[in-house]
Amino acid sequence: MSTQWTQAKRAEKMNPSVIREILKVTEKPGIISFAGGLPSPLTFPITEFAAGTKVLTEDGKSALQYAASEGFGPLREQVAASLPWKVDPQQVLITTGSQQGLDLLAKILIDENSPIVVETPTYLGALQAFTPMEPNVVSVKSDDQGIDIADLKAKGKGARFLYVLPNFQNPTGRTMTEARRAALSAACMEIGLPIVEDNPYGELWFDQAPPLPLTARNPEGCVYLGSFSKVLAPGLRLGFMVLPKTLFPKILQAKQAADLHTPSFNQRVASEVLKGNFLDRHVPMIRKLYKSQRDAMLTALSREMPVTPGNAEASVTWNTPDGGMFLWVRLPAGLNAVESLPKAVDKNVAFVPGSPFYADQADSRTLRLSFVTASVDQINIGMKALGEAIKEALLELQNLQKAA
Amino acid sequence: MSTQWTQAKRAEKMNPSVIREILKVTEKPGIISFAGGLPSPLTFPITEFAAGTKVLTEDGKSALQYAASEGFGPLREQVAASLPWKVDPQQVLITTGSQQGLDLLAKILIDENSPIVVETPTYLGALQAFTPMEPNVVSVKSDDQGIDIADLKAKGKGARFLYVLPNFQNPTGRTMTEARRAALSAACMEIGLPIVEDNPYGELWFDQAPPLPLTARNPEGCVYLGSFSKVLAPGLRLGFMVLPKTLFPKILQAKQAADLHTPSFNQRVASEVLKGNFLDRHVPMIRKLYKSQRDAMLTALSREMPVTPGNAEASVTWNTPDGGMFLWVRLPAGLNAVESLPKAVDKNVAFVPGSPFYADQADSRTLRLSFVTASVDQINIGMKALGEAIKEALLELQNLQKAA
Repeated sequence: MSTQWTQAKRAEKMNPSVIREILKVTEKPGIISFAGGLPSPLTFPITEFAAGTKVLTEDGKSALQYAASEGFGPLREQVAASLPWKVDPQQVLITTGSQQGLDLLAKILIDENSPIVVETPTYLGALQAFTPMEPNVVSVKSDDQGIDIADLKAKGKGARFLYVLPNFQNPTGRTMTEARRAALSAACMEIGLPIVEDNPYGELWFDQAPPLPLTARNPEGCVYLGSFSKVLAPGLRLGFMVLPKTLFPKILQAKQAADLHTPSFNQRVASEVLKGNFLDRHVPMIRKLYKSQRDAMLTALSREMPVTPGNAEASVTWNTPDGGMFLWVRLPAGLNAVESLPKAVDKNVAFVPGSPFYADQADSRTLRLSFVTASVDQINIGMKALGEAIKEALLELQNLQKAA
Repeated sequence: MSTQWTQAKRAEKMNPSVIREILKVTEKPGIISFAGGLPSPLTFPITEFAAGTKVLTEDGKSALQYAASEGFGPLREQVAASLPWKVDPQQVLITTGSQQGLDLLAKILIDENSPIVVETPTYLGALQAFTPMEPNVVSVKSDDQGIDIADLKAKGKGARFLYVLPNFQNPTGRTMTEARRAALSAACMEIGLPIVEDNPYGELWFDQAPPLPLTARNPEGCVYLGSFSKVLAPGLRLGFMVLPKTLFPKILQAKQAADLHTPSFNQRVASEVLKGNFLDRHVPMIRKLYKSQRDAMLTALSREMPVTPGNAEASVTWNTPDGGMFLWVRLPAGLNAVESLPKAVDKNVAFVPGSPFYADQADSRTLRLSFVTASVDQINIGMKALGEAIKEALLELQNLQKAA
């Protein structure tokens, strides 16, 4: 008989990545893409990485050997020392990108139908990491300052955890205020709800550092996820978790089963690069670059987008992120971002529709723009094209409405 | 209230790694360890890796950027071309070590209580990767040529897959003969049983290459797992899977959710190192080294171990692996490898007891010796110490029996 491949039940729930399918239309030579979440390669410290590969000549036998699942000791210490609250290096676990941290948490904290709580909208990659463990994902109302506390208290009790990105969130670019963080932290303690705090963009602030992380306020009640992808480079796949003592042993076991350990070579090279407070010198350059690109995009949006003063429903609207990589746009009533994408691609510009970032009740008018991958010139050209595509779609809509 | 961390049901099944606990007793300065599965660092091509890091200066912006979940195109092609059957590079998925391949397979192929079939004994790391998805692990009888076909046919029908290491198996070092492979392949086709073939050691043969992989005989009925850890170095965490077309898309989705992609830097460096048929020049050196160390261990075993001619039950017995890294030893009746380990450690020598490698009904007299990490001198010293420890344990046993 032919071989009987039977897939697990969970595999059915893992639908082909919507975003992957959507982005296929954007794979076109010469397109200006605001779709991806790629850091600008201008920020990669290539020379320092090349220098860091001296770990091969200095101690290649260790750099190329199997290593501890916990991570490279000196790197764990550098991570702990870099955080704005007291962290024991023994609570730091080095991961193969912070995406892996989400996968490990899903395995250890989610049973089938376990409720977990997320922002509206939230990071798509987190939903993809959680889905295989078949949680019941509950969206909590959120505004431009973050999570709605009353809705969280109503929905969060008994959930396995709240997953939240307080700084320059992916996809919206929004940041939780100090007041909202204090209230959220208190609310979670009140209802006993654990927090998974994801902070890949926190260092990329433009004018002032964001408020203290949630984890700093209650370390035993939070897992903190960090990444080197945005301050060094993503191609090394280096992230980390700061774990409460109660969780560390099981997450470590899951890590060991997942890939034994994160590449020792990469950890040692990164540890070399980080020496002498490298990030204190390096990150200001990234902030300056990304701020100039955000400003260019904001200016271009004002110039190119159809806006009816005093009527947000008839206008394209957007926010002004204080850092990070993304900006959140809402189309006029009647337009749909998924349907508008092919029209934009026809004009050689791409974005990501917002719908896949919603666990439920998607706002189909939303879309995400990255301002860090394209240059200022490309931003100007691309925004003009996007403005034209939206104006044409609006005209088409008006003609349809007249005809009806 | 205090934060309510609730762990998933599967986390309870993930017991602290037995082997990790056992090996804690071996963490002693100056100990000669035959316990770990560490390749000899003498085999690491450090100079070639250092040269390969030129990918940074030549195209650092790509080497350090996010990349495709499938893996680096040229590396996928190099993998496909290296295999002894026709493989489409599109069926190759680069993984973060072959351990990750096991993790992805578990997610996509195992439901709670799904039967899966393994050898007796089998690779502990595979059991650790499968356990979180809560399979029903069924051990099939195995002899020194591999899996017992009749027992497989009796137990394997309806299982999600058979997990098998045909070459220089971990832990036993045994290799399946051509006849057994042909029979196994036919039996699996007969009962429709998919095969997961793990082949990290296949290139490390001493006198002649092992027979053709099982996957070559029925590619759509098999998943093949390979690794660069033993032919280049483990610290890059580079492995690969060759997947049937029916499985590739789902495994790819699981890969994307697990760590987005394997570090692009590592893939590009490895691809550089592999150019110009590097392995054809490099691997013979590893084979020669490991063969000399296996020979030293065999000679030392003959010299140091208590053997009663014609009475295997009263003797230490062992096999003669034709390649790989491990040799399998059985203690005389009445002795137990877990209990004997502290006695060996007292004499500054360590091994891994065989019990954790059995899914059920462990043979507690077995133990695994690695012959690749220690030098020939260390092998001679360590084997003498191990022989003494076993002789003393035997004497103790005889005294106890006399006293009873």
